[in-house]
Amino acid sequence: MNYILAIEDGKLPSKRPKRGEKALLIGVKMKKNRIEAIYCKSIEVDGLDVTEAAMKIISNAKPIDIILLGGISYAGFNIIDAVKIWEETRIPIIIISKEKPDNKSILSALKKHFEDWEVRWEKIKRVLAKSKGIHEVYLKSEKNPIYIENIGIKREAAGKILRENTIWGRIPEPIRVANIIAKNISTTFYALKNKNPT
Amino acid sequence: MNYILAIEDGKLPSKRPKRGEKALLIGVKMKKNRIEAIYCKSIEVDGLDVTEAAMKIISNAKPIDIILLGGISYAGFNIIDAVKIWEETRIPIIIISKEKPDNKSILSALKKHFEDWEVRWEKIKRVLAKSKGIHEVYLKSEKNPIYIENIGIKREAAGKILRENTIWGRIPEPIRVANIIAKNISTTFYALKNKNPT
Repeated sequence: MNYILAIEDGKLPSKRPKRGEKALLIGVKMKKNRIEAIYCKSIEVDGLDVTEAAMKIISNAKPIDIILLGGISYAGFNIIDAVKIWEETRIPIIIISKEKPDNKSILSALKKHFEDWEVRWEKIKRVLAKSKGIHEVYLKSEKNPIYIENIGIKREAAGKILRENTIWGRIPEPIRVANIIAKNISTTFYALKNKNPT
Repeated sequence: MNYILAIEDGKLPSKRPKRGEKALLIGVKMKKNRIEAIYCKSIEVDGLDVTEAAMKIISNAKPIDIILLGGISYAGFNIIDAVKIWEETRIPIIIISKEKPDNKSILSALKKHFEDWEVRWEKIKRVLAKSKGIHEVYLKSEKNPIYIENIGIKREAAGKILRENTIWGRIPEPIRVANIIAKNISTTFYALKNKNPT
């Protein structure tokens, strides 16, 4: 595995962001723990545009050997269509969660808040089907497991790649770096955007 | 040397930015080539506020053992007062340039474009005095040299730290990473700011 692309979202623009407000999506391309490039796009809170934004990042970042996604839901309930990305790019995808995703709660939240809940839930279901469920993976024996969904790559191979690219704690380095950048950039980003409406 | 903080600016907001327009300032804190944190502030194009913004980043990033600055001039001619930062923090500073700074050209540009050119030039002069000039340093024998000004640290010690933290090419890793982030974040940052004046 040479080039890894990790995709993560930033903080929400406010405590109670409105649907359609802009939030950040960050991509980090790494090769053997060296940062090669950073990509930055905006997506809508609770929108339907994260797949398109991710596809643009992927297309800018090519060549890539594997894509790591820091979850399936970005900027609120902007659900990524990971199966579509796999079908269009044929780049294997690993979706990573620190906690076991609670899909029952997600479904009931979707039903409660979104008229178009079925469109969103469909993307989650397709990933679950493709990945044959959510899998527990131990990256370090002394740490808690993480949870993955694997698309276009076998579970064992996915675990191996993640272990090879985890240096600190139990989070693979590209996801860790994408997280740090997304989190720390967001605050200034939103502050500046709101302060300077020019 | 444990904690290194590198500070860099992003791209200018446009080809001919107006004085006072907001630009990005990025700080990257690393420990043995591990990214610990990212900091992001906004500064004014051709403004006088980069020293204050850098001081805020430094104060958030503490503890820090050494500060690397990717030049003396940020977002146009927003000159950093590196000697003041040294006096207030007592953290050694190394200012790094890939090309030998041409202070004669800088002085004539300052005189041409700024009524307050003396305030800006004063900061450059003070660094030159404190650092006893600009020094050529070879980080890798087969590569071109870089140019440094060192404050609060001897030239030999500065060179040693830079060599220890240079993995790829001839740019110390924290500055390389800060550059990648600043450069790649800026475009989206400015686009989003201008598109969404809410």
